[in-house]
Amino acid sequence: MADKKLQVIPLGGLGEFGMNSMAIRYGDDIIVVDAGMMFPDAELLGVDIVTPDFSYLKDNAGMVRGLLLTHAHEDHIGGVPFLLADLDIPVYGTGFTLAMVERRLEEHAMLEDAKLNEIKPGDVVKLGPFEVEFIHVTHSTAACVALAITTPLGVIIHTGDFKVDPTPLDGRLFDLHKFAEYGKRGVLLLMSDSTNVDRSGYTESERAVAPRLEDIMVRSERRVVVSCFSSSVHRLQMIFDLARKSGRKVGLLGRSMLSVTEIAHNLGLLEVHDNLLLRPQDIQLAEPAKTCVLVSGTQGEPMSALSRVAVDNHKHLKLEKGDTVVLSARMIPGNEKNIMRMINHVARRGSNLIFGSMTPPVHVSGHGSSEELKLILNLVRPKYFMPVHGEYYQLSRHAQLAKHLRDHGLEASFVMETGESLEIDEKGARKGERIAVGRVCIDSGSIDEVVEDMVIRDRRHLSEDGFVMPIIAIDKSTGKPEGPPEIVSRGFLSEDNKDILAEAKKVVARTLETSNHEERADWGVMQEKIRADLKRYLTKQTARRPLIMPVILEV
Amino acid sequence: MADKKLQVIPLGGLGEFGMNSMAIRYGDDIIVVDAGMMFPDAELLGVDIVTPDFSYLKDNAGMVRGLLLTHAHEDHIGGVPFLLADLDIPVYGTGFTLAMVERRLEEHAMLEDAKLNEIKPGDVVKLGPFEVEFIHVTHSTAACVALAITTPLGVIIHTGDFKVDPTPLDGRLFDLHKFAEYGKRGVLLLMSDSTNVDRSGYTESERAVAPRLEDIMVRSERRVVVSCFSSSVHRLQMIFDLARKSGRKVGLLGRSMLSVTEIAHNLGLLEVHDNLLLRPQDIQLAEPAKTCVLVSGTQGEPMSALSRVAVDNHKHLKLEKGDTVVLSARMIPGNEKNIMRMINHVARRGSNLIFGSMTPPVHVSGHGSSEELKLILNLVRPKYFMPVHGEYYQLSRHAQLAKHLRDHGLEASFVMETGESLEIDEKGARKGERIAVGRVCIDSGSIDEVVEDMVIRDRRHLSEDGFVMPIIAIDKSTGKPEGPPEIVSRGFLSEDNKDILAEAKKVVARTLETSNHEERADWGVMQEKIRADLKRYLTKQTARRPLIMPVILEV
Repeated sequence: MADKKLQVIPLGGLGEFGMNSMAIRYGDDIIVVDAGMMFPDAELLGVDIVTPDFSYLKDNAGMVRGLLLTHAHEDHIGGVPFLLADLDIPVYGTGFTLAMVERRLEEHAMLEDAKLNEIKPGDVVKLGPFEVEFIHVTHSTAACVALAITTPLGVIIHTGDFKVDPTPLDGRLFDLHKFAEYGKRGVLLLMSDSTNVDRSGYTESERAVAPRLEDIMVRSERRVVVSCFSSSVHRLQMIFDLARKSGRKVGLLGRSMLSVTEIAHNLGLLEVHDNLLLRPQDIQLAEPAKTCVLVSGTQGEPMSALSRVAVDNHKHLKLEKGDTVVLSARMIPGNEKNIMRMINHVARRGSNLIFGSMTPPVHVSGHGSSEELKLILNLVRPKYFMPVHGEYYQLSRHAQLAKHLRDHGLEASFVMETGESLEIDEKGARKGERIAVGRVCIDSGSIDEVVEDMVIRDRRHLSEDGFVMPIIAIDKSTGKPEGPPEIVSRGFLSEDNKDILAEAKKVVARTLETSNHEERADWGVMQEKIRADLKRYLTKQTARRPLIMPVILEV
Repeated sequence: MADKKLQVIPLGGLGEFGMNSMAIRYGDDIIVVDAGMMFPDAELLGVDIVTPDFSYLKDNAGMVRGLLLTHAHEDHIGGVPFLLADLDIPVYGTGFTLAMVERRLEEHAMLEDAKLNEIKPGDVVKLGPFEVEFIHVTHSTAACVALAITTPLGVIIHTGDFKVDPTPLDGRLFDLHKFAEYGKRGVLLLMSDSTNVDRSGYTESERAVAPRLEDIMVRSERRVVVSCFSSSVHRLQMIFDLARKSGRKVGLLGRSMLSVTEIAHNLGLLEVHDNLLLRPQDIQLAEPAKTCVLVSGTQGEPMSALSRVAVDNHKHLKLEKGDTVVLSARMIPGNEKNIMRMINHVARRGSNLIFGSMTPPVHVSGHGSSEELKLILNLVRPKYFMPVHGEYYQLSRHAQLAKHLRDHGLEASFVMETGESLEIDEKGARKGERIAVGRVCIDSGSIDEVVEDMVIRDRRHLSEDGFVMPIIAIDKSTGKPEGPPEIVSRGFLSEDNKDILAEAKKVVARTLETSNHEERADWGVMQEKIRADLKRYLTKQTARRPLIMPVILEV
């Protein structure tokens, strides 16, 4: 029976940060765990979203039995629409995870055709030769699961993202017993989250942020503005409860904050008391001492609600002296500069700022630290171990963490990068053939814009529509453009269409004129605004979608 | 006598990170404190160094009496050559600070004409109506001073960068007495370092890193590779001493590491025992268990020694399994991605990595935390306070820290940004006229290259030589270029010179071919290599210096 080999194929998220996706193949049957996305490095000019290249799955479309989702974070579900665009396969996830996927599918008008199957922890799903049990784990978003995948060669455990929160806010404990049970019976391969491997000790419980947040709500004499990830449902619940306790009403700003709270509320994951909420248009009028505003945009994304509030360009909230702004989130690596710009703008408004590490904390991580990782390793005691979710150095540290299990049945750890594959058969496990993987870059115009016409723009197709590069020189001290904008274009329009490029320069000039001083001093905001405006103009004029890469020269 | 007003004019470093410079004017006399540089944001394509625009000083050249340097860090002295290129003024600094300036002046062949004047703490220099006393302070580099500037309207204290190290490695205590004396007599204006204002408590003494470093040296069974800033003379001394104590010889890699240790040794600031040092060419041959290597490049600068070691492309050091690499430095904001790339490469070599925060620490800051800042405020008790050296939010927090002094003579704090000015006269202090300031961007070809022909490239001159933009598509998984490189150029060569651009494409292709897989997978390295090679070719062919901006598309 077990003459076929088992292959474990990371399509994304190993040796890189984000866009997690893993294929598991036995003979002619494949299942996929997660299909995430990542935000690109600044070097990838003009790209908004990066997803794994799912060619391997498309090339073997007839074999793919289903997609299993561990939880609702973008780095695990953000690529689902792009995968389902090519593969008509069933998707399995908890109610909240699927609701978050539905939101994305709707934006792409793909919801009707999707085969979404809700599962609950404890459920078992049979897909070809695989039997998948879903196991409840704790993490920073709601309704997260790990997977126990029984294959003809043995059991594979995939943890998803997790921490072992001893006192979760919703009272639903991490299912240690299930991990212990599988460990006792024998596990062939463990794949475990490596994100926080370099933190010693235990990650604090989500509850640990309550004292600081309560203190802020009670002591602040004016508005309290809190920014956190909209998917952090437990954090939102805590803020709702503390606001109510301290006599504050809660306003919500930002598209994702509004839609996610609605989803979580509808699913019974978020309790919202009557008369607690303020409509966005009422926030500015409400008594500041009795107001709390939840705003999306913790990472300084240039078009997010908080960034717009920071540069005093949001119609529903004008920060004032004495207001308190709390960043209840970590800085995702690569976003530090954007976040610092936003923080400086908030300071210019005269508002108080609370962010960063402090005791008690204003943010705790959703990922387990090294002692939690060892706990999982010791419960599962796998024969083979493959650290997942992390850059190379994190994966290699996680492998080192498992060394002591050599005396307890561990035969080998594999530090693998996306594109490598692990092969397991009766004789054992080894690195197998390289799989053609890669990245697909997607230009959606503007990250926070409703993505009404998202185009999958593989950079290989650059030659088809070419690119347009508006170049603007801005005087840093005055914030004013120096001379008219230039536009460099290649492979987009021939010399016969000079009129369109001349008009495009005027579009850029107009965008500059209609921006205020602070926006002009903020490259990130200006790049996004110019890109969005120019894209609208060029699409209308030419029905083509060149890559638009604004370059701002500071003089 | 005091009918003239005093003006304090930040030319750089207020409301931004780096390139600190401050002009102080009384009537027709100006003195300048520091002339720093900064490394640019990634958005500033093709720029290597940014300095303040010194136009204000050039426009008033006849009034500038001298440049006072507080210490030897690049963000305080890196702009000196660019200032002295236009102004023939005397420069004052400690022996070590001047030696570090000499090194830069030599690169620009400007050393002979410079009027460098060595001062010692306690010395007083008279410049027009100003009398400047130099005060010894502790910081992460050697021979640092604060300034007490007596003007006709009162005393200005400028702290430079400092922490109040209670147990400095060289035994030279922070001169608290002098600050107390001036404070007792009455200080008109205090300008104080805001870098670490958001850290609570005290910054640990430089000595605090010794236990961890000693432990690493003693326990490691193979090579110990330590990277720290070459200007951290006390840290270097500690590493030399610990290496010797643990039976290791010390090799030095990287241009700055070699030259700064030589300078510090010649000045008697660094004690190097006989037979302690290994020549670079002997490092690889020496017994690993008895070797320590000091390498420059803590910030992941793509062409630095450590980055080259990390991608296994340094002729004098090949990392191996079991070697230990220590990053004894902080991550400067904006460099996180470069540093993480380097760390991942080191992990691929199989070496152990020690970096980040831990107890005991492997790095301590050179800047005072909030309790130290309050100590200085309480010693000086100024009439006016202007926080310096920091982004806007740091300056505003520092101003908040001084609030309690309202009951002790403080009349006002001024949170100022570069380009604003403070005016003080008999009637008091207020924000004065705006000064035309800005930034000058300099393209030196390659940061770590010997700068034999540095060109000051104000972006305003872009129209003169134009730009050249090589565009390369690289397949992330294979590391191979997809198709031939493209080159976009504007304002550089006319259509008649197609041959040169065609040949330039071949130059880029050649750079790609002769790079190894890991280099090709590292955008930063490839951008630098392509830029350097293309620049060499184009300069030779055309004698022009277009801005070269390599764009790497990952497909």
